[in-house]
Amino acid sequence: MRTIELKGEKVVMIDQTLLPEEVRLIECADTECIAEAIESLRIRGAPALGVAAAFALAQTALKNAHKPAQEVLSELEKTRRRIAATRPTAVNLHLALERVMNRARESPSPAEAAYREALRIYEEDLEANRRLGEHGAELLEDGDVVLTHCNTGALATASYGTALGVIVTAWRQGKRLRVFADETRPLLQGARLTAWELVQEGIPVTVITDSSAGYVMRTRGVTKVIVGADRIAANGDTANKIGTYSLAVLAREHRIPFYVAAPLSTIDPETPDGERIPVEYRGREEIEFFNGRRIVPREAEVLNPAFDVTPARYITGIITEAGVLTPPYEESIRRALEGR
Amino acid sequence: MRTIELKGEKVVMIDQTLLPEEVRLIECADTECIAEAIESLRIRGAPALGVAAAFALAQTALKNAHKPAQEVLSELEKTRRRIAATRPTAVNLHLALERVMNRARESPSPAEAAYREALRIYEEDLEANRRLGEHGAELLEDGDVVLTHCNTGALATASYGTALGVIVTAWRQGKRLRVFADETRPLLQGARLTAWELVQEGIPVTVITDSSAGYVMRTRGVTKVIVGADRIAANGDTANKIGTYSLAVLAREHRIPFYVAAPLSTIDPETPDGERIPVEYRGREEIEFFNGRRIVPREAEVLNPAFDVTPARYITGIITEAGVLTPPYEESIRRALEGR
Repeated sequence: MRTIELKGEKVVMIDQTLLPEEVRLIECADTECIAEAIESLRIRGAPALGVAAAFALAQTALKNAHKPAQEVLSELEKTRRRIAATRPTAVNLHLALERVMNRARESPSPAEAAYREALRIYEEDLEANRRLGEHGAELLEDGDVVLTHCNTGALATASYGTALGVIVTAWRQGKRLRVFADETRPLLQGARLTAWELVQEGIPVTVITDSSAGYVMRTRGVTKVIVGADRIAANGDTANKIGTYSLAVLAREHRIPFYVAAPLSTIDPETPDGERIPVEYRGREEIEFFNGRRIVPREAEVLNPAFDVTPARYITGIITEAGVLTPPYEESIRRALEGR
Repeated sequence: MRTIELKGEKVVMIDQTLLPEEVRLIECADTECIAEAIESLRIRGAPALGVAAAFALAQTALKNAHKPAQEVLSELEKTRRRIAATRPTAVNLHLALERVMNRARESPSPAEAAYREALRIYEEDLEANRRLGEHGAELLEDGDVVLTHCNTGALATASYGTALGVIVTAWRQGKRLRVFADETRPLLQGARLTAWELVQEGIPVTVITDSSAGYVMRTRGVTKVIVGADRIAANGDTANKIGTYSLAVLAREHRIPFYVAAPLSTIDPETPDGERIPVEYRGREEIEFFNGRRIVPREAEVLNPAFDVTPARYITGIITEAGVLTPPYEESIRRALEGR
């Protein structure tokens, strides 16, 4: 199963809003279709968003390859602007757009350059996640009970996954694991997607409400917490799905190691710390209605932050394709990025 | 609006599962109807459950008042057994059943004794909540930003409410407050009921997902956390809606005072500490489906604890009708119960 693929001029994705009940593919023939899929979370997960953004540009490049270079660049720029407007926090998306655009701008054949760079981002993501999974799996021991949040599996990336990729890799190495998956309100990616992926792998998974995490840490022998990241600042402060910060505080209270798993592409060295990470607020309807039923009175306010920021001091290690980074993160992150 | 009333031989309740969309009354003519209403959470909230249990016995007493004492007692015993089987953690329910049964057993006219004692429980609940609200309101200051969990308002009691009663009392005294209400998965009592009650009062309320609580404490200037209780042990350890323990840990991390508001009837001096409080596990379908839609794959496990236990050391004070109890709780609780 591939979360996202470029087939000819079509970008093909699994519509993740329909899981676990239905596995349906969306075939996008244009930028607007891809932008809509990103905005409505049919595709989500930081690395997958980077690939989706790159593929949007690749598609535009393919469709306009016969035009003069200036026109190609102008079409690419339109696509870039539309995709950049979809989700402000996800750094991979913005970095992927910049990488592809820079190559296109520098090249006498911008269409070809954009297409090649987009494919390279895709292949790098596959390889980074594979290596990240192997480094992370070394941290897991036979018998571990792992708590995770949101979805960071194959569905969140081009393949493999980040936090969930670590768990799956360790499981395939023969380590017996049990997983608690937070359901992850409001969009329930943990219940719908993470549990679904773990079931496919045969890994024992127990779904809990987000607010049960403290209880489960206290009473169910959780030995590790592993989450993904949407953006990591230069000092290790990490933006990830809302609720991650609460988990980090709870993990520390219970002396449970708390790991972030993310490819180096998630680290933004231009963002010095978590204070500088813009937090995306999503619409109230995600909380106000569920499957068509109103669950919040019309007159009440609703606050729906998509992310929170976990200060680096709560993070035991950051699992990347270059190994597991540990505090002080300013230093370990700088070295990892230099070695890339 | 009364959450529960005894009208003739009928027990009349608001069906809380339909709020906020619809205000519909259930009229129960027999024990089974009341038991079903308790089990399916049409009525919920520790104090309201005590009153519902008492009214179930009062109803049985009224219906059998013409029979000989032995038969009345035997009918009351049947009702007691059925109601006691509904919810194991809620201490008010069990204490109310015992109180009414003891009076009935001691009396030559068990029907009359049961009826009178049930009404007394109801009136005591009203009075206890009113006084509790006043004591608690003294802790709140103009400008406070209060975070609360689940529903502890008029809907959770015979009237007034506990944690929410404190907030409403302070508001009516003219203190300007803002409230963050956790939606409270899986049954969304915070989003559906607490927000609804606050809107009725005109108090500004913002609904958040449970996992946003840490973020909101960190970034939105929360000054107090107030929650209710389903059972309080002799040492102050407190069982309350799942997620309360996580909130208590987060509150301490942010140096925010964490208060429990509950009538003395919620304290069970026979339970020495939280380890001894039985935790109710509810069915997986509460998490597995939402409004008819499957959100967890069939093959995944689900863990659905209704409550968690917050150790007394996280609790700044316990607001009761006898005043605000503070650590050491063994002593303050003993004194409060002796003075009752």
